[in-house]
Amino acid sequence: MINSINNEKIKKYSKLLQKKYRDESGLYIISTDHLVREAQKKNIVVDIFLLEDKKNVYGNVTYVTETVMRKLTNLKTLPTVVAIVKKEVEREILGNVVMLDGLQDPGNVGTIIRSCVAFNIDTIILGDNTVDVYNEKVLRASEGMIYNINIIKKNLIDSIMDLKVKGYDIIGTRVDNGTDIKEITSKKYALLVGNEGCGVNNQLLNLCDLYAYIKMNSMCESLNVGVATSIIIYQLSEN
Amino acid sequence: MINSINNEKIKKYSKLLQKKYRDESGLYIISTDHLVREAQKKNIVVDIFLLEDKKNVYGNVTYVTETVMRKLTNLKTLPTVVAIVKKEVEREILGNVVMLDGLQDPGNVGTIIRSCVAFNIDTIILGDNTVDVYNEKVLRASEGMIYNINIIKKNLIDSIMDLKVKGYDIIGTRVDNGTDIKEITSKKYALLVGNEGCGVNNQLLNLCDLYAYIKMNSMCESLNVGVATSIIIYQLSEN
Repeated sequence: MINSINNEKIKKYSKLLQKKYRDESGLYIISTDHLVREAQKKNIVVDIFLLEDKKNVYGNVTYVTETVMRKLTNLKTLPTVVAIVKKEVEREILGNVVMLDGLQDPGNVGTIIRSCVAFNIDTIILGDNTVDVYNEKVLRASEGMIYNINIIKKNLIDSIMDLKVKGYDIIGTRVDNGTDIKEITSKKYALLVGNEGCGVNNQLLNLCDLYAYIKMNSMCESLNVGVATSIIIYQLSEN
Repeated sequence: MINSINNEKIKKYSKLLQKKYRDESGLYIISTDHLVREAQKKNIVVDIFLLEDKKNVYGNVTYVTETVMRKLTNLKTLPTVVAIVKKEVEREILGNVVMLDGLQDPGNVGTIIRSCVAFNIDTIILGDNTVDVYNEKVLRASEGMIYNINIIKKNLIDSIMDLKVKGYDIIGTRVDNGTDIKEITSKKYALLVGNEGCGVNNQLLNLCDLYAYIKMNSMCESLNVGVATSIIIYQLSEN
């Protein structure tokens, strides 16, 4: 049982709440029972910390006090369990792809990861300005689906160039002048979606081969980016 | 210019951050430039408060200090403008309907309102346990679309009974044993979606005429409720 926030392990691991230390160490923190169990199935768990008095269903754990647990999370509601987990190695691009340009809302990114697994996307590419997927809130919103998809961090201009060479259709998203998603027949595609407020960067948008359009009532200018992405990949999986 | 949080008007309006006072008064607070402009188009604005030194593009406003503005919002980032707005009168049920059972995440509810306008839903019915739509975060996530749809608060058992009498197909959502959404041909329907963690209440689910199923990869158990709702109403608008 650890009851001091000055414990060396706790001091080291609590730094993982910052992206910089996650990037350096290749480790991150997860904080729900569901996520911990999913991570255990994948054999990527390094350490588990359980709140004192809670029943241990995980195997090898270290008990900690509430004060110590509080050091290992940014969430308002104190978790009963957190685990320290190794990032998986980035794999080669394979299958259909979704690229995220500058998404900032962790809930949106988590939701998109979940939908990508549902609709058979194999790889997500995170551009330079997108929120870190190893952020606790993204992980929660992904419902553990992050373990079922290949996630790559890479500059999006370079990525698009690579994908074009590999024969991918690059599908952009913008509010007007697109192809109705029911009419898109690409069998090997990379979908590019953008920031909540400003959409996809223009330089990237100009590199696209076609643009996806979701037919909607003119009273509504646009959809939430998580919803729009999900509808497009749902429809493309049905075409 | 108001510079004291003890000003009577500010004291009165700041109570609208609590649901109880919104329910009592029929007023609520909105807090982005976009929402204020949309509300002005609808002629439902009662008062506008603008942060000192900001340019007035709204007409009749009262300037306030940062400290006073802080009293009128729960948002972390201080808004430059807030308005006090009258709730619109609930109208009769008309057209297609979405019913929300116990949704708790303001972002999800706001997103659903936005998608409902996009895909021609005319009425949203809020069950007893769903988060208040006049909550600042719901309003933000709705991107002002709340003004373009009829919102009714009503017990969902009563609602379903009414809707059945009116000839609506009641479409439930659950993870298994449903009809593929591409095969649903209802022309007059009410879709019932449920809480983020537990889904739709069983008693309500048993009252449904059919259940919507979204075909997805078996690695993924379910979608975010905002996404699932949006995909279903998108697909039904296309059938």
